[in-house]
Amino acid sequence: MKRLSVLAVVLFAAVSPVLQAEEGMWTPAQLPELAGELKRLGLELDPSGLTDLTAHPMNAVISLGGCTASFVSPAGLVITNHHCAYGAIQHNSTEDDNLFERGFLAESQDAELSAGPGRRVLVTVEFTDVTERVLGGLPSDLSGRARYQAIEEREKALVAECERDAGHRCRVASFYGGLEYWQVKQLEIRDVRLVYAPPESIGKYGGDVDNWMWPRHTGDFAFYRAYVGPDGKPADHSEDNVPYRPRHFLRVAPQGLAAGDLVLVAGYPGNTNRYRLAREVRNRIEWYYPTRRRLLLNLLETIETATADRPDAAIKYAGLMAGLNNASKNYEGMLDGFAKSDIIERKQALERRLRAWIVGDPARRARYLDVLDGLERLVEKRQADRERSMFYESFVGRSSLLSTARTLYRLSRERQQPDAEREPGYQERDLRRIRERLTRMDRSFDPAVDRAAWSRFIRDYAAIPVEQHVAPFDAWFGIAGTTVDEARLQARLDEMYGKTKLGELDVRLALMEAEPSALERSDDPFIRLAVQLFPADMELEERDKDLAGRFSLLRPQYMAALVAYLGEQGRPVYPDANGTLRVTYGTVEGYSPRDALRYTPFTTLQGLLEKQTGEDPFDSPAPLLEAVRERRFGPYRVEALDSVPVNFLSTVDTTGGNSGSPTLNGRGELVGLLFDGNWESIIADWDFIPRITRSIHVDIRYVLWVMSEIDQAHHLLRELGARHAAGTGGARAEPDTGGPAPAGTD
Amino acid sequence: MKRLSVLAVVLFAAVSPVLQAEEGMWTPAQLPELAGELKRLGLELDPSGLTDLTAHPMNAVISLGGCTASFVSPAGLVITNHHCAYGAIQHNSTEDDNLFERGFLAESQDAELSAGPGRRVLVTVEFTDVTERVLGGLPSDLSGRARYQAIEEREKALVAECERDAGHRCRVASFYGGLEYWQVKQLEIRDVRLVYAPPESIGKYGGDVDNWMWPRHTGDFAFYRAYVGPDGKPADHSEDNVPYRPRHFLRVAPQGLAAGDLVLVAGYPGNTNRYRLAREVRNRIEWYYPTRRRLLLNLLETIETATADRPDAAIKYAGLMAGLNNASKNYEGMLDGFAKSDIIERKQALERRLRAWIVGDPARRARYLDVLDGLERLVEKRQADRERSMFYESFVGRSSLLSTARTLYRLSRERQQPDAEREPGYQERDLRRIRERLTRMDRSFDPAVDRAAWSRFIRDYAAIPVEQHVAPFDAWFGIAGTTVDEARLQARLDEMYGKTKLGELDVRLALMEAEPSALERSDDPFIRLAVQLFPADMELEERDKDLAGRFSLLRPQYMAALVAYLGEQGRPVYPDANGTLRVTYGTVEGYSPRDALRYTPFTTLQGLLEKQTGEDPFDSPAPLLEAVRERRFGPYRVEALDSVPVNFLSTVDTTGGNSGSPTLNGRGELVGLLFDGNWESIIADWDFIPRITRSIHVDIRYVLWVMSEIDQAHHLLRELGARHAAGTGGARAEPDTGGPAPAGTD
Repeated sequence: MKRLSVLAVVLFAAVSPVLQAEEGMWTPAQLPELAGELKRLGLELDPSGLTDLTAHPMNAVISLGGCTASFVSPAGLVITNHHCAYGAIQHNSTEDDNLFERGFLAESQDAELSAGPGRRVLVTVEFTDVTERVLGGLPSDLSGRARYQAIEEREKALVAECERDAGHRCRVASFYGGLEYWQVKQLEIRDVRLVYAPPESIGKYGGDVDNWMWPRHTGDFAFYRAYVGPDGKPADHSEDNVPYRPRHFLRVAPQGLAAGDLVLVAGYPGNTNRYRLAREVRNRIEWYYPTRRRLLLNLLETIETATADRPDAAIKYAGLMAGLNNASKNYEGMLDGFAKSDIIERKQALERRLRAWIVGDPARRARYLDVLDGLERLVEKRQADRERSMFYESFVGRSSLLSTARTLYRLSRERQQPDAEREPGYQERDLRRIRERLTRMDRSFDPAVDRAAWSRFIRDYAAIPVEQHVAPFDAWFGIAGTTVDEARLQARLDEMYGKTKLGELDVRLALMEAEPSALERSDDPFIRLAVQLFPADMELEERDKDLAGRFSLLRPQYMAALVAYLGEQGRPVYPDANGTLRVTYGTVEGYSPRDALRYTPFTTLQGLLEKQTGEDPFDSPAPLLEAVRERRFGPYRVEALDSVPVNFLSTVDTTGGNSGSPTLNGRGELVGLLFDGNWESIIADWDFIPRITRSIHVDIRYVLWVMSEIDQAHHLLRELGARHAAGTGGARAEPDTGGPAPAGTD
Repeated sequence: MKRLSVLAVVLFAAVSPVLQAEEGMWTPAQLPELAGELKRLGLELDPSGLTDLTAHPMNAVISLGGCTASFVSPAGLVITNHHCAYGAIQHNSTEDDNLFERGFLAESQDAELSAGPGRRVLVTVEFTDVTERVLGGLPSDLSGRARYQAIEEREKALVAECERDAGHRCRVASFYGGLEYWQVKQLEIRDVRLVYAPPESIGKYGGDVDNWMWPRHTGDFAFYRAYVGPDGKPADHSEDNVPYRPRHFLRVAPQGLAAGDLVLVAGYPGNTNRYRLAREVRNRIEWYYPTRRRLLLNLLETIETATADRPDAAIKYAGLMAGLNNASKNYEGMLDGFAKSDIIERKQALERRLRAWIVGDPARRARYLDVLDGLERLVEKRQADRERSMFYESFVGRSSLLSTARTLYRLSRERQQPDAEREPGYQERDLRRIRERLTRMDRSFDPAVDRAAWSRFIRDYAAIPVEQHVAPFDAWFGIAGTTVDEARLQARLDEMYGKTKLGELDVRLALMEAEPSALERSDDPFIRLAVQLFPADMELEERDKDLAGRFSLLRPQYMAALVAYLGEQGRPVYPDANGTLRVTYGTVEGYSPRDALRYTPFTTLQGLLEKQTGEDPFDSPAPLLEAVRERRFGPYRVEALDSVPVNFLSTVDTTGGNSGSPTLNGRGELVGLLFDGNWESIIADWDFIPRITRSIHVDIRYVLWVMSEIDQAHHLLRELGARHAAGTGGARAEPDTGGPAPAGTD
C-alpha cells in the first residue's frame, strides 16, 4: 500500500479545506488519510479498519466479474442487483417459464438454481504492491513491443506464482497509467446459485425508459448463494456442494438513511479516464462515441428485425439487447453531457498550466517535457488507425461463429508453446473459461441473427477508407474499394452458414483439442476464414502491443508529472478505476438538473402509483399496487416521506462495475445497493461534476418491504437477520433470536 | 356589496384557522373580511381601500375584454401580456413586415400603431347590486322560457338605463348561479394603440411546447396606450385623439418579490365551475372534453393542411391556430388532471352530505329537497341534447360565411322590433361591434380554409345520432341517416363558395341595412341557407332559453343550500368567476409535481441558455443570449439566484381572463404580470388543489431587464418611473426625478 498512501499523504496535507469530498474512487489503503473528512460526515467505524481486505466490512464485498455484490449471511447468501443476475435468470428461463416475468424465489436451499457455467463469486484476499517486480530494471530504451512483452511476461509469472494456491485467481492491475502495479488475489467460487429475484416488473421497473433517470423506482436487487465443495474449497457445480461460509458478511440496517447522511460504497468500478489528454477526450466526443453509437443502434435494429416473431431467438439475444439499449442510451447521455460540458477547455487549460509548470523549472523540463510531446504523438498515432480498430477489430469480429473459429485456431497455435509463454487468455488456467464460453454460446446464438448482424457489419466495414482495410478479409468477400457486391456477399454467407458445424456444441468443444495443422486443413468456412485472417490479425495485434508498450512508458511519466503538479496545489490524486476494490464516500443528496427544478433524494412507493400505466416497463404487479394503495408500509415507513423509500440519490463517485455494490452507513451496515448513475453522471468516467453527478441506489427498506409485503420471502428475511422481517400488514416482529451472530465477529 | 359581504362575514367568522388561504377569486368587497389573513401574509395596504373601485389600486386594473391589463403611467400607458396583444400585433403585421418576428417599439407617441377596430380598454367605474331589480316579484311558477325572458328584459332595461351615460358599457352579471345580480359599469375606451411588444422569441418564448408548463421563461408582456378625444371622452380612432389620463395608475416595484412573499392579483377571471354537480363534472370529463378536443384537433389539422405553402392564408389563421393549440393542450391537461383527481368522488360525497343535512331538518327539507332533485333532472335533460349542441350549434356554425349570413339575417329580423325588445347582441348598442366584426373578418378569413374546415365539421355532424340532427340542414346537403354523399356535398360547396359574395367587405356591410324580405329573396347560397335554418335555429334557441330559465330558478336555490351548509361548517364561499373584477391572494411558492421532484418558484436568465436550441420556440435573440452569457444583469440581479428572475410561481387562484393581470406586492405595487397557470392548474376551473395548483407570472425585473438591456426602451422606462431604468451594463441610474407622481395620489 505504500505508494498509494504516500501519494495521498502528500496531497491531502495541504488540501482538506478545498477538497471536493465526493469525487474519488479511493483504494481502501487511502481511507485513513481521509479520516477527518469521513468522521466529519458521520463515519463511526475506524477508517483504518477499512484497509484490511480480510476483515469486516471489506472482506464481505465481492466481485461477480463486471458487477459487485456482498455476503449478507453466514451461509454464503449474496445480494447484488437484479441486472447483475440477468445471465443467471436468463440461464434458467425458457419460453414456457420466463423467470424475468414471474420472478423466482427458492423456498429452500434445495430449490436454488445453478446460475450457469461461468458465473463466479470472487473474494479479494490479497492486494500486493508488485511495481518493482513488474518494472524493476526495465531499460528505458526498449521498443514498445519489447516493453509490452517484458511487462506481460513478468505479470504472467506473478500470476502463475500466485495461482499456485488452488481455487484462486490472480491478476496484476496497473494504477496511475502504469506508475504502479498491484497484484490482486481472489478466491474464485464457481458454484453460484440463484436464490431470489423479483419479477422484472419490480427488478427492472422503468426498464430502458427510466435507465439513467431520476426519479427512479427500480427494485434492482437479487440474491445468489455461493457454494463450495464439502471441503470448503471452490468446486464445480455439484449436488454435494455446501453453502460457503464467508469470514465476514454485512449486517442489514433496516432503518436506512436520511437526507444528508454519510454514504460509503465499496465495490469494483471498472474503468474511468479522469486523466486523459484533451486530444483523447475530443476524439471520444467527436468521433468515437457518435460512431460506436451508430453501430450499436444498427445492431439493435438488426437483431430486432431478425428476432421478430421468433421468441426462441429473442430470448437468446435478450441479454445482448439489454446491454445494447443500455450502451446506446449511455452514449446518448455522454454526447448530451459533453455538449453541455467545457471539459475540453478545462483539460486544455490544465495542460497549458502543466506545461508552463514543467517549462518553468530545469529539472522538471529535463524530466517531463519530452513526455508531454511524446504522449501527444502517441495519441495521434493511435487515432490514425481508429476506423480499422473500430470497424474491423471490434465490430466485424462480433459474429459468434467467427469469434469461435478465431478462438479455436488461436488456441491451437498458442498450445504449441510452453504454457508460460502463451498469450494471456490461452493458458491452461484459461481453458475452463474458454470451454464455458463455447458451451454458453448455445444460449445466446442464433445463426439467422448472427448472419444478419454480421452482414451489416461487413458492409459498414467496407465503407471505411480503403487504406484502413484488411486485405485477406476483403479477398474472402470479394470487397473491392469501399463497396460490397451484395449478391456475392450473400452467396458467400449462404455457403458459410450452410456449411459450418461450429453451431454444434460437441464440434466446438472437440476442436479445443485440435492441432493447428488439422484446423488449417478444415473445410469449415469460418475456420478457413480465421486461418486466412490469422497473419493479418497477428500483425495488427503486434502493432497494438507496440503502441501499448510505448504508452506504458509515457503514461506513467505523464501521471507522475500531473501528480506532482497537482500535489503542489494541494489537490489529491486517486487512481483511475481499474476493476480493483475501491471505496467512495459522499452524502444522500438531491440536485438541480435544470433551472427551477430540484430533484429530492428519495423516491417513494407513491411514485409507483404515479408511473403506473399497466404497460411494460411501468407495470407494477397488482399485489404491489394494492399494498401501496392500502398503505401497508409496515415498519419500513419513513415519517418524513409518509411512505417507504424506494430509491435514493447520493454524491458518491461510481461507474460500471459498481453495480450491485453495497451501500453502507457510517457503521458499515447495509442500507442499499448502488445500481445506476443519473443522466448527468454518464460523462463522469471522464468528468465528475460535484454539483450534478449523482449515483442511484435502491433503498434497503424497499428491498425488505418487497421481500416481506409482496414476495413473502420470510425465510430469507430471517437469514438476513432483518429485525422487521416477519409479519405482514406492518406488524413489527420480534428480533429473530435464531439469526446470525453480529457481522464482523467471526 | 351587501350580500356578498354578508356571506363572507357569516362564513369567515368561524373559519379562519382552517381557511385554505390561496383558494378563492374574491370580489373586492369581500377583502376586508380577509384582512387578518392578508395582514399575516404581509399586506401593508388597508384592505378596505381595496374595495373602492374608483381608488388606487383597483381603478388602475382594467379589462381588455378577455384579458386584464393595468394603467402604469399618468399618460394612459397600459401593460398586459404579449399574448393579449396578439390581435393588435397581427393587425399590424404583413407578410413582409411581421411584428411577431421582429417585435415593435414605438420610438415616440407619434409612432404608436392602432391596435385595430374592436380593441377596447374597459375601466370599471361602478359595481351595483341589482338583485332586487332583476328578480324582485318574479312568480316562482313561471315557465323556464318566461322566466328567462323576464330576467333578460329586466337586465336589458338596466343596461339601457346605465348606458345612457355616453362612452360607457354596462352588463348585469349573476353571482352564485343567479342568487345575486350585480351591474358592472365600465368606461369604454376604443382608441387603443400598440406601444411596445418584444419579438415572439421573447414574448412567446417556449411557445406551445412550454404553454402551461413549468419551468417557464416567457417574456409575456406588451404595452398599449389608451387614447380619448381631445375632450377626454372615449372616441373612435383619430389622429386628433390624446392619451387618456387615468385617475390612478400602478407604480412599478423594481425590487420584485422573494419566495414566500404575499402576492395579490387583481383581474377579470372569466369563468369557473367550482360548484357544479358531480353529474355535470362527469359529463365534462367523459364526453365533453374528449369530444371537443377531438374536434379542435381536427380543425387544427385541417387548417394546417389548407394553409401549407400559403403564408398569406396562414397569417390570417395564426390567431385562431394559437387559440386552438392552447385549447387542445388545455383539454389534454384537463383530462390528465381529472384522471389523477378524485373530484367526482369528492363531489358525490359532498352531495350525499348536503342531502343528509337537508333531509335531517324539516324546514330545510321543505325548502331544498326538491331543488336537489330538480337540478339533477335539468342536468340530465340538457345532456340528452349534447351531440346536437356540440356538433350543430357549436361547430357547424364555425364557417365564417355561414356565421356572417346568420348574423345578417338575424339582425334584419331583430330590427323589425323596438330596440328594447331585441335579442341582446342585436340592439342598436351592438351595431358598431357587429360592423367591426364583419370588417375584421377580412383579416382572418380565407375561403379555401373556411371550406376545408366546414366540410369536415359537416361530416362530423352527420355522424351523430339521427334524432339529434336538424332537418333543414340535412335537407340542404342531402344528408340521409348518418352518412354524407361526399360528391354531392362537394358539389354543393363548389356552388356555395363559387357564388357567395359574403367574402366581400362592402357586400357584408351593405347587408347590415337589409330588410328580411330582401334577404329572403337573396340568391347568395349562404344567406339562403341561413334563412332556411332560421326557424329550426330559433326553436333550438327557445329550448335553450327555457332550460336556462329553469336553471336560473333552481341553481340559486341549490347554491343557497350549499352556502348555508358550508357556512355551518365555517367554510367560506366565494362566487364562481364571471368576468367581473376579482382579487386573489397567495404567496410565491413552488410545488412538487411528482415523486422526488420539486419545482422552485423562480426561473432565471440561465434557464434561457439551457433551453436554447436556435429553433422556434427556443430561439432567444442573439443580443439576449450574449447579455446572459456576459452576465449583464444590471440592477435586476437577485443575490439568491445569482441571476435575473424571469418567471415565478404563486399560489393565487386565477383562470382565463386573468391573463395580463397585474401582480401586486403588499404595498399594491406592480411586481409582475400573471400570464398562465401550471399544468396541474388546468382543471382548476373545476377543482382547485392547494398543494399543486399554481399560477405563473412574468417577473417585473425580467420585463425591465428586457426593456433596458435588450430593447433599449429607455423612454418607456422613464415613463414607468422605474428606478433602475437608464443605463446599460448594470450601472444603477439615479431616480428619475422627471417621473410621475406617486401612484394613488390623483
